[in-house]
Amino acid sequence: MTNEGSTGSPQGWQEVVAAVRSEVPLVHCVTAAVSMGLVADGLLAAGARPMMTETRAEAPTVSAAADALLVNLGTLSTDAMDGIPATVEAVQRRSIPWVLDPTAIGLAPVRTPLARELAKLGPAVIRGNASEVLVLAESGEGGRGADSTASSDAAAGPARELARRTGAVVAVSGEVDVITDGMTAVTLAGGTPLLTRVTGTGCLLGALTAACAAVTDPLPAAVAASTWLKSAGEQAARRAAGPGTFRIQLLDALDEVGR
Amino acid sequence: MTNEGSTGSPQGWQEVVAAVRSEVPLVHCVTAAVSMGLVADGLLAAGARPMMTETRAEAPTVSAAADALLVNLGTLSTDAMDGIPATVEAVQRRSIPWVLDPTAIGLAPVRTPLARELAKLGPAVIRGNASEVLVLAESGEGGRGADSTASSDAAAGPARELARRTGAVVAVSGEVDVITDGMTAVTLAGGTPLLTRVTGTGCLLGALTAACAAVTDPLPAAVAASTWLKSAGEQAARRAAGPGTFRIQLLDALDEVGR
Amino acid sequence: MTNEGSTGSPQGWQEVVAAVRSEVPLVHCVTAAVSMGLVADGLLAAGARPMMTETRAEAPTVSAAADALLVNLGTLSTDAMDGIPATVEAVQRRSIPWVLDPTAIGLAPVRTPLARELAKLGPAVIRGNASEVLVLAESGEGGRGADSTASSDAAAGPARELARRTGAVVAVSGEVDVITDGMTAVTLAGGTPLLTRVTGTGCLLGALTAACAAVTDPLPAAVAASTWLKSAGEQAARRAAGPGTFRIQLLDALDEVGR
Repeated sequence: MTNEGSTGSPQGWQEVVAAVRSEVPLVHCVTAAVSMGLVADGLLAAGARPMMTETRAEAPTVSAAADALLVNLGTLSTDAMDGIPATVEAVQRRSIPWVLDPTAIGLAPVRTPLARELAKLGPAVIRGNASEVLVLAESGEGGRGADSTASSDAAAGPARELARRTGAVVAVSGEVDVITDGMTAVTLAGGTPLLTRVTGTGCLLGALTAACAAVTDPLPAAVAASTWLKSAGEQAARRAAGPGTFRIQLLDALDEVGR
Repeated sequence: MTNEGSTGSPQGWQEVVAAVRSEVPLVHCVTAAVSMGLVADGLLAAGARPMMTETRAEAPTVSAAADALLVNLGTLSTDAMDGIPATVEAVQRRSIPWVLDPTAIGLAPVRTPLARELAKLGPAVIRGNASEVLVLAESGEGGRGADSTASSDAAAGPARELARRTGAVVAVSGEVDVITDGMTAVTLAGGTPLLTRVTGTGCLLGALTAACAAVTDPLPAAVAASTWLKSAGEQAARRAAGPGTFRIQLLDALDEVGR
Repeated sequence: MTNEGSTGSPQGWQEVVAAVRSEVPLVHCVTAAVSMGLVADGLLAAGARPMMTETRAEAPTVSAAADALLVNLGTLSTDAMDGIPATVEAVQRRSIPWVLDPTAIGLAPVRTPLARELAKLGPAVIRGNASEVLVLAESGEGGRGADSTASSDAAAGPARELARRTGAVVAVSGEVDVITDGMTAVTLAGGTPLLTRVTGTGCLLGALTAACAAVTDPLPAAVAASTWLKSAGEQAARRAAGPGTFRIQLLDALDEVGR
């Protein structure tokens, strides 16, 4: 992994990872049904604690007790559409950091305008692939499903503009991750193509970012989460024979790397 | 694996598998919550791309960008009940192939009449176990939950009738799979009993069938998907110590077999 | 594992496990979205059969055909809120045993009063961690998310009172499990901390308890399910390198132990 540009971070990624493991933050996740299991198991493997409910009746109340919130728009259910705005308001009022993951926006008619509204509500970090960030920056039309059709490079400029406009750190994930607070930008290479062969690794990155944002500032949090997942992915790839064994080794590796 | 009867197929299963891997079809899945993870990971392992959302507000729009659609009625949520008819209409208008998987129909009071209505709307393939196919052919009362209480043999005649009536290829899975377009019938043995010890392998077969239907005609698509899953299951069974390790090896094997 | 106190059980845990494997009970689960996959795969590994749907439109009808019901309040959806009361009524009318798992009650504004109402409707077993049992016994304010902040020891007295008041066996899980019918109490040590590093092992314990309650009385059922999971956990821990491999080995071990 290479860091290019100034990191803007007071802490190395291993310190952030150690802080997650010692503070065991409770991360409330409103996230895609398809990747809920990986997100929860990944948070537990990372040393954090997941909590999951998305209804308007319960999500705002329980999120107020969390250390961080992830809002991921994948497979957006009616319950989630209804519960997300009040849940974001609840964490905002308590200054609990939250991460916006605008999964698969572009074509989708509800989540695209919803993501635009949510981006105005003070997320600590906006995390997406290049296509998603381009849509949110109003510079692109979106990818196909959860996959990006643009490169992180192409999203670097729009990501910086989006960060300036929203006050959020914007983290663009791909072969190379680009993370920016609008002024400094950090570029992270490394990882493995196997991360694209397992459902929900992007959602998991959003959840790890939320766990890190519970223990440090948004920029070092986003950098640490990306580095953590890339390092774990590299270790898992060395032990895996295919996408099934990779998914399992990834969870073991999240628990191991950076110690 | 043995093919009995004329295959009716212009392509061998390995050619279909190769086409999925090179064309990377985007498969929109409205499917059971309990097996969503296996379906998505299985499609990725197979070389296809999953996309999952089921609301009436979004599913019809995003399915219009897909290469194939799976409609599986397992654990049918209110969102899915509401979203499925419009989603099927959206793919019909664009001649996108779609697969109907009438999971656990029989006793269930909503999905049983819904499956009968959907069967009239031009699915490329109807895939189910013997009990489900018998209910849809109005020759049986259904199994217990997702399990069949009838044999594929008993369903062969009703499957042929159902294929004639609906214009769909009907694929009956079990120890022996029977696949028919109403005229020819293909019988596939092989596989492993471990496929019944993991949740969602039937749902995954429906999703693989949809991925194959994106690259070839319905009959060779259904035959290729069944053969692919049975071959992967056989390989995984040789490497597995129990149902947990089997599930993981199955994903690795979907990525490996037929190359 | 040590049993302290009189067991109150006519059967050893291995006999109960053998009965599940030979009778293959159909267990209807209304359970947390995040752990549905582990619950279903765990029931299959144990030799039982899962069935999952939660809507008011279908859950009551299909549960009437089940051998046991699990009602777990984790990630409670609008569909589940709406479907649970009628589903419990449906199994009550048929004297089908059911298990109440009041996941994460305390802070949550809907599931907490719902759990109190359901506890009055004749569950065979109430299964929870110490914090959840204390809330239900109105002796505590709940944990954080799905985690207990109290010890099983502290819950032993309130568990006994709760058992007397409801007529249910109350099973408190933790490092040590305490299971009581209000008169006798069984204490079970053993297991492994890795069980807390995987999402849904508590939900799975509830489902195994339901499977056992389909083949024997509530007290031996709860004791057998706890012993089964602890034994499988111990075996899996010996084979696992981390939380990812542990989850997979746990499923294999559920299939193996007690034979």
